[in-house]
Amino acid sequence: MSSDVTFDFPRAQRLGFSEAVLAAGKSTAQLCTILELAAGRGISLLLTRLADDALAALPAQYRAQIDYDTLSRTAVFGDLATPASEMRVALVTAGTSDLAVAREASRTLRFHGQASLEIADVGVAGLWRLMARVEELRSYPVVIVVAGMDAALPSVVGGLVPGLIVAVPTSTGYGVAAGGTTALHAALASCAPGIAVVNIDNGYGAACVALRALNAMG
Amino acid sequence: MSSDVTFDFPRAQRLGFSEAVLAAGKSTAQLCTILELAAGRGISLLLTRLADDALAALPAQYRAQIDYDTLSRTAVFGDLATPASEMRVALVTAGTSDLAVAREASRTLRFHGQASLEIADVGVAGLWRLMARVEELRSYPVVIVVAGMDAALPSVVGGLVPGLIVAVPTSTGYGVAAGGTTALHAALASCAPGIAVVNIDNGYGAACVALRALNAMG
Amino acid sequence: MSSDVTFDFPRAQRLGFSEAVLAAGKSTAQLCTILELAAGRGISLLLTRLADDALAALPAQYRAQIDYDTLSRTAVFGDLATPASEMRVALVTAGTSDLAVAREASRTLRFHGQASLEIADVGVAGLWRLMARVEELRSYPVVIVVAGMDAALPSVVGGLVPGLIVAVPTSTGYGVAAGGTTALHAALASCAPGIAVVNIDNGYGAACVALRALNAMG
Amino acid sequence: MSSDVTFDFPRAQRLGFSEAVLAAGKSTAQLCTILELAAGRGISLLLTRLADDALAALPAQYRAQIDYDTLSRTAVFGDLATPASEMRVALVTAGTSDLAVAREASRTLRFHGQASLEIADVGVAGLWRLMARVEELRSYPVVIVVAGMDAALPSVVGGLVPGLIVAVPTSTGYGVAAGGTTALHAALASCAPGIAVVNIDNGYGAACVALRALNAMG
Amino acid sequence: MSSDVTFDFPRAQRLGFSEAVLAAGKSTAQLCTILELAAGRGISLLLTRLADDALAALPAQYRAQIDYDTLSRTAVFGDLATPASEMRVALVTAGTSDLAVAREASRTLRFHGQASLEIADVGVAGLWRLMARVEELRSYPVVIVVAGMDAALPSVVGGLVPGLIVAVPTSTGYGVAAGGTTALHAALASCAPGIAVVNIDNGYGAACVALRALNAMG
Amino acid sequence: MSSDVTFDFPRAQRLGFSEAVLAAGKSTAQLCTILELAAGRGISLLLTRLADDALAALPAQYRAQIDYDTLSRTAVFGDLATPASEMRVALVTAGTSDLAVAREASRTLRFHGQASLEIADVGVAGLWRLMARVEELRSYPVVIVVAGMDAALPSVVGGLVPGLIVAVPTSTGYGVAAGGTTALHAALASCAPGIAVVNIDNGYGAACVALRALNAMG
Amino acid sequence: MSSDVTFDFPRAQRLGFSEAVLAAGKSTAQLCTILELAAGRGISLLLTRLADDALAALPAQYRAQIDYDTLSRTAVFGDLATPASEMRVALVTAGTSDLAVAREASRTLRFHGQASLEIADVGVAGLWRLMARVEELRSYPVVIVVAGMDAALPSVVGGLVPGLIVAVPTSTGYGVAAGGTTALHAALASCAPGIAVVNIDNGYGAACVALRALNAMG
Amino acid sequence: MSSDVTFDFPRAQRLGFSEAVLAAGKSTAQLCTILELAAGRGISLLLTRLADDALAALPAQYRAQIDYDTLSRTAVFGDLATPASEMRVALVTAGTSDLAVAREASRTLRFHGQASLEIADVGVAGLWRLMARVEELRSYPVVIVVAGMDAALPSVVGGLVPGLIVAVPTSTGYGVAAGGTTALHAALASCAPGIAVVNIDNGYGAACVALRALNAMG
Repeated sequence: MSSDVTFDFPRAQRLGFSEAVLAAGKSTAQLCTILELAAGRGISLLLTRLADDALAALPAQYRAQIDYDTLSRTAVFGDLATPASEMRVALVTAGTSDLAVAREASRTLRFHGQASLEIADVGVAGLWRLMARVEELRSYPVVIVVAGMDAALPSVVGGLVPGLIVAVPTSTGYGVAAGGTTALHAALASCAPGIAVVNIDNGYGAACVALRALNAMG
Repeated sequence: MSSDVTFDFPRAQRLGFSEAVLAAGKSTAQLCTILELAAGRGISLLLTRLADDALAALPAQYRAQIDYDTLSRTAVFGDLATPASEMRVALVTAGTSDLAVAREASRTLRFHGQASLEIADVGVAGLWRLMARVEELRSYPVVIVVAGMDAALPSVVGGLVPGLIVAVPTSTGYGVAAGGTTALHAALASCAPGIAVVNIDNGYGAACVALRALNAMG
Repeated sequence: MSSDVTFDFPRAQRLGFSEAVLAAGKSTAQLCTILELAAGRGISLLLTRLADDALAALPAQYRAQIDYDTLSRTAVFGDLATPASEMRVALVTAGTSDLAVAREASRTLRFHGQASLEIADVGVAGLWRLMARVEELRSYPVVIVVAGMDAALPSVVGGLVPGLIVAVPTSTGYGVAAGGTTALHAALASCAPGIAVVNIDNGYGAACVALRALNAMG
Repeated sequence: MSSDVTFDFPRAQRLGFSEAVLAAGKSTAQLCTILELAAGRGISLLLTRLADDALAALPAQYRAQIDYDTLSRTAVFGDLATPASEMRVALVTAGTSDLAVAREASRTLRFHGQASLEIADVGVAGLWRLMARVEELRSYPVVIVVAGMDAALPSVVGGLVPGLIVAVPTSTGYGVAAGGTTALHAALASCAPGIAVVNIDNGYGAACVALRALNAMG
Repeated sequence: MSSDVTFDFPRAQRLGFSEAVLAAGKSTAQLCTILELAAGRGISLLLTRLADDALAALPAQYRAQIDYDTLSRTAVFGDLATPASEMRVALVTAGTSDLAVAREASRTLRFHGQASLEIADVGVAGLWRLMARVEELRSYPVVIVVAGMDAALPSVVGGLVPGLIVAVPTSTGYGVAAGGTTALHAALASCAPGIAVVNIDNGYGAACVALRALNAMG
Repeated sequence: MSSDVTFDFPRAQRLGFSEAVLAAGKSTAQLCTILELAAGRGISLLLTRLADDALAALPAQYRAQIDYDTLSRTAVFGDLATPASEMRVALVTAGTSDLAVAREASRTLRFHGQASLEIADVGVAGLWRLMARVEELRSYPVVIVVAGMDAALPSVVGGLVPGLIVAVPTSTGYGVAAGGTTALHAALASCAPGIAVVNIDNGYGAACVALRALNAMG
Repeated sequence: MSSDVTFDFPRAQRLGFSEAVLAAGKSTAQLCTILELAAGRGISLLLTRLADDALAALPAQYRAQIDYDTLSRTAVFGDLATPASEMRVALVTAGTSDLAVAREASRTLRFHGQASLEIADVGVAGLWRLMARVEELRSYPVVIVVAGMDAALPSVVGGLVPGLIVAVPTSTGYGVAAGGTTALHAALASCAPGIAVVNIDNGYGAACVALRALNAMG
Repeated sequence: MSSDVTFDFPRAQRLGFSEAVLAAGKSTAQLCTILELAAGRGISLLLTRLADDALAALPAQYRAQIDYDTLSRTAVFGDLATPASEMRVALVTAGTSDLAVAREASRTLRFHGQASLEIADVGVAGLWRLMARVEELRSYPVVIVVAGMDAALPSVVGGLVPGLIVAVPTSTGYGVAAGGTTALHAALASCAPGIAVVNIDNGYGAACVALRALNAMG
C-alpha cells in the first residue's frame, strides 16, 4: 500500500509550510501509511476534511496523538509549535454557517504557528455589525473574508481595509447560490480592487495564501 | 405587413401601463405599422432599445414626433403626460457604466407620469458615497438599484432602506461577470431580505415593477 | 458559542420586518443561543427551513413555545400578532408540489400580521382553472405566483392582473427543469412586463418583497 | 471540389422529404457544385440560412432559377410542386421577432407541397389575442408554435389544442433569454403534456417533424 | 386537503388523453384525494414516478385496484380499455439501462389503448443490432427512440426510418453525460432532420407526443 | 428478460477487444442473463462499476468464477489469458484518490493480455516526484495520465514524454473542480500538444484507447 | 521584442514533432521574430490559425517562403520533407463545413512527413455514405473523425473500425450545438469504446495524437 | 455630466493605492470629467482598458499629459513617482499571448512606484524554460503568474516558489478554454497550495493584490 503514497515531505523546506493530508477520498489504510511515515520522521501533520467516522476508524494509538475539531473536521497529529506572539491574521465571516470554513483556516494557521482573530456573523444585511469592527480590522496585514450566497462582504471589507484581503466563497445558500458558485463569481468580479480569491469552502487554501504573504513579510 | 403585428392596446386598461415597443429585432416597416396604428388612435408610445440607425431609418414625419434619448436608446412617440408632483421612485447606480440602464427605467417611469431621482456612481468599494445618501433613500417607497459585476450594492441598500427594492443587474464587467450573470445571481442570492429582481439590463422591467407597486398603492 | 451569533435585532426598526432564522446549516446549540436571546428580549421569532429532526432536537421548553408547520418547515417561536383585517396578498401555485414554498410565504406574511389567500394547482396546462379566479385576483395589490418546471404561470397572470406580481420559481420538475433554474430564467425573461423575481424556492423572500411594498403603501 | 460533397439524394425516397442545403458555412464553390448536381438530375433544392451576400455571390444563371425570401433567408432552386389543397399545419408565433423562424418552417413545408396558416404575434402577455384563435387552431392536425424569451406560448397552446404540437424556441430576447436557451428549456419542461421540441431557431426541423407526421397519416 | 388539488378532468375531452398523476413530490394524503376523486367519477388514472414505498403507503383498498410496474414505477388505477388491434408505435432503446424510460412510454400508450413494440439494446456501438431491425421499423408511423450518453441512436434511426421520430434522452451515463444533458443536446442538434425531442427521462411525454399524432391521424 | 439484452459478442472480432459489462444500472437478473450467455459460449467477461452489494447479490456459482477488485469495482468472470511479456503501457496518477480510476484501466488492460506499470501520487505540486520517473516514462509507447482538480499533470507529462498520452480526468476535488469538469477542460485545453482525452473517471475507456493503439502497432 | 518569445526548439528532439506557431493572438512583430529565429537555424515551421490579413502583413521575403492554405488557415514556412510512402492516417468528416478542421490535421501530418486520406461529407443521416467506405477505413491504424452538431459519426465509426480513433468535435451548428460543446460531450460520452478526444476545432491536436501513436509504432 | 461621476479620491488614503479609471464603457465626456477633476487636484491617474480610438477622441491637451501603452491599453495621466529601488514583484507568463495582461499588471505596479520583472513565454509544455528561472523566482516576495488555456503554470510555479503567488487566468485559447473559464477554474482548483486568484484578464487586480501585500509588509 505504501507505494500508493509519495508524500511531499520536502515541501516545508521548499515553500515554508508542509503538505496537509486531504483525508476525504483516502482509505483508512492509506491514512495509516501516512501517519506512520510522519511518526517515523518525528514530524507533525495537519489533516483536513477528516470525517468523524474516518477518525473513529483509525487505530487507537494514532487517535491518541490527534487533536480533532468537529466543526472544521481538521485534525492535528503530533505536537503543535508555540504560536507567534503577534496576531497578524483576522478572519471575518458573513454568517454563522460560514464558521466551519473559517475554522479550517484558523486551525491551519495555528498549525503553522500563527494565531488569528475570528469575527463572526457580520454580513452586510446588518451593516452596523461590520462597521463596529472596521477600525480594528484596518490594523491587520491579512484579512480572510468568508462568505456565501451573494458574497457582498469581501467587496465591502475590501473597500474599507488596506491589508491583503483573501476571500473564501462558501457553499452556504440554495437555488442560485449554486453550491458557492455565485459567491465565487461575486468575489472575483468584486468592485473593490485587489481581492485574492480561493476555491469554494477552501479555508485551508486561504490560510496558505496568508502564510505565503506572512513568510514573505519576514 | 400589418398582420405581423397584433398590438396589445387594451393592456393600458388591463394593467395600468401600456405595451412598449421593443424596437430591437423589428424592421423599419414593422415599426412604421405600429407608429401608424398609434397615431390613428391618438395615443403615445414608448420604444425601447431603438438603435441610432433604426431611428434614422424612420420617415421624417415620424421622427418629428419622437423624443429620443441616446444614452438609454429610448424614444417617446407623441405627447407626454404631466408628471406627478410627488417623486416616489429613487434610482441608484453602482457605476457610471450602469447609467444607461437606469435611464431606461427613469424614461419609462416618466412616460407613465412618474418623476424619479437618479443617484449615480455610489458603488460599495467607496462606501462613503452611499452612506451620504442613505437617509434620503429611506424616504422613498420604491428604490431601483442598478449594478453590474458583483452587484453588492442591492444587498447593502436592501439592508439599510425599508422601501420596495428592485435590483437591475447589468452586463457591466468582464470575465466572470459573464454579461451580467454574476450580478443577477448575486442579487437573487442576496443576504438582504426581499430584493425583487428583474432580467439583466432590464431597466424597462424594473420601472414596470415600480408602476405596478405605485398603482397598487393608489 | 454566543460569539458565533450577531443577531440583527435592529432590523425590525430599520426595515419594518424582523430577521428570520434560516435554521438549515445551524447547530442545535446555535439555535438555542438565538432563541434564548429572543426570549430574553421578549420578542417572537420566525424560523425557516427547520427540519423535523432539528425541531425534535431542541429542548422541550423551547418546543413548547413553537408553532411548527410541517409542509413549509417554518416555526414561529413566541406570540403572534393579530392579523390585519384586510387580506392584501394572494398566493397562486401552479401545482400541488409548489404548495410548500407558497406556505413558507403565507406563514412569513402571517408572522408579520398579514393574512393571505392561497389558490392552489391552477397551472396553465388546464387554463380554465386560472381563468375562473382571474377577476378575484385582479383586486389584490400583491400577487405571489409560485411555479416550477416551465413557469408559464407568472407570465399568464402578469398579463391579466394589474397588482405587484412576485414570481417564486420552484425546484419542482426533473431533467431540464434543473432544480428550478428553468423556472427562474423563464420568470426573468417573461413576456409579461414588470414581474419581480426572487430566488428558487424562496417563499420567505417573496413575502418580504410583499411586506416592503405593503409597508410603503402605508 | 466535388469530392467535398456527398449529397444524400436517396433521402427523398428513404424518408419522404429531401435533403436541404444548410448554406451557412459553405463556400460559393461548394454551393455551385450542389446546384450543378441538382440541375443535372432535374430536381429542385431547398437552401436554408442563405445570407443575402451569399446569394449575390452565386452565378447569374443559378440566381435566375432561385426564389429567395429575405425574412427567412430561404431559397428554392428549381420548380415548386403544386401544394396540397388541404391546409394541415398552423404556425403560431409569440412575437413579431419570431416570424423569420416561422417563415423558414412554412417555406420548408411549401417546398414539400404543404400549405400552412401563419398566426403572428399572439404571445400570452395579451392572452386575448390567442384566445380569439383557439377554436380555429383546434382543427389542425399539426400546430407549430414559435416563441422566444420565456416560451410560455407552447404550454398554453398545448393545454388547449389536441393536435401534434411542435415547439420551436427562438433566440429572441436578451440577458437570461441566453440566445434561446431559456425558451428551449421551458418548452422541454412544459407543464402541458406531449410537446415535441426542436433546436433553437430550427424552423426547418419543425417543418420536417410535421412532414414525418403528415406522411405517416397518409 | 382537497383544496390543494384542482384536477384537470376535462383534459381527456379537450386533448384526447387524460391528465396523469406525477406521484413524485405528492404526499400520501394528496394521492388519496386524487384517487378518491377518480373513483367517485368511475374513471381510471395513470400514475407516474410512483416509488415503491409511496405505493406501499397507500390504503389497501386503493392498492387492490392498482396495477403496478416496478421497472417504470408506473401504476394504473382502475380498469384498462382493450388495446387497439393495430400496433402503431415502436420503441427502440440504446441500452438495457434505458428500458425503464421506454417502459414508462409503453405503459402510458397502453393506458390510452395503444399497443407498442419494444426493441431493446440496439445501440450504435454494435450497429448490426439495429440494422437487423430497420426494415421492420420503417413500417411504423411513430418510432420512439430512447437513448442516453451520446444519443447517437436517434440520429441513425432518423436517417433510416420515415415515420415520426420522438427522441427521449435518458440520464444513463456519467461524467460529461451530465444526467442526460449531452443526450438531450445531441438529439436536438441531430444531423438527421425532423427529430422531435422531449425532456430527459420523459417516457410519459414521448407517449403523449405519439398519442397526439395518432389522434390527428384518425 | 433475455430480450432486454442484445450482447455485442462479435465486437472482439470487429474491434480487437470485447464488450465490457457496465454493471451500474443493471439489475441482478440482467447481469445473470449476460453471465449465462457468456458461460454458454465459454468466454470470459469484464464487468466495470460493479458495486460490492451488486456482487453479493449474484448467485454463488457465478461469484465463484469472479475475480473482484474492490478499489476499482471491476470483476473478471472466467479465465484470464496469459499477459504479454512486454509491458507497453504506463499509468501515472496525480494523487492517491486517483488510484481507483487508474486501477480500472490496468485491470481492463490485463483482461486483454496487457501488463502495465502504475506510478502513483506524483502530482506537480511536488514536481521532484515526477522528474525522478521521467526517463523511465519516456520508454513507454503509451502513457495513461490520471488526474483530477486542475489536471496539470497531463500537460507536464505531455511536454516531456514522446509516447501516446491518454489523459483521464477524475472527479477528485471540490468546489470548482466540479466533479471532474475542470480537470477535463484543462486536459482538453492543454498547452502540451497531442493529449488524447476520455470521459471523466473513464479508466476503462483510456485502456481501450491504449488497446486500439497497441493493436494497430501490431 | 525577442524576449517576448522563448521558442521550444528542443521539442522536436524531445517529442518527435516540433512546436507549431499558433498565429492567432500574435503580432506581426512577434511572428517575424519567430520566423527569423527559424530561418537562422535553417528549420521549417508550421503556423496554424494564420488569418489572411495576418499573412498579408508579413514582409515579402517571408511570404515568399510560405506555402499557405486558405481553407485551413495553415502556413508552412521553409522546406517540406518527402512524405512517407505508406498512408497510415484516414480523415473522415461528417459534413462539408468540417473540412477546414480536417485540413488543418492533414496539413500538420504532411508537415511531419505523413500522408493521409480525406473522406468528406459522410455523416450518419445518410448512413450509406459511410458504409461504402468502412472496409477501407478498417485497414488504417489511425482514423481521425471530424464532426460537429451531434457528433454521432465518431460513435458509429468507433463501433465499426478497429484502429485508433481520434475524434475532433467542431463548432459547426447553431443553438444547442453551442460552438462545438455538444459535439465534444457526445464524443466523450460515446457508446463506442476507446474514442480519443481533443479540443473543439483542434485539427492540429488530433494530428499530434496521431503522430505520437505513429512514432510509438515505429 | 459631472453628477454621473462620484470619484473615490479618498481611496488612496484608505487603501494605500488610488482608484483607477476603467475606461471601457465610459464616454469621452465622462472621461474628460474625471481627468479634469484629477488635474484640478493635481494628482495622477491610471486608466485601464483605454482603447486606441478612445484615446484619440480625448482633447489634445489631455493626450499631451498621457503616457500610453498599446499592448496593455493602459494610460498614465500626469506625473509618475520614482520607482522603489528594490524589485519585489516578478511576472511570469505562459505564452506570448498572455503578455498584454502581464503588462497591465506591471504598469499598475509602476504607477504605484513598484518596479517588476517580466519573464515571458515559459509555459510548461517546454518545462526547461521555467526550470532555468526557478532559483531567481524563489527570491521574490510576490510572483504574478499569467496563463490561459489549461493554466498549468500557476500550479507548477506554486509548487516550486515560496512567495505569494497571484494567478491571473487569461482568455487565451479556444473551444473549452471558454474565454478563460478553464484557466480560472484550474487556478482555483490548483493542486499547489495557497494560490491567490483574480478575475480573467485582470492584470490590474493582480497588481492591487501585490500592492496590498507589499504595503502590509512595510
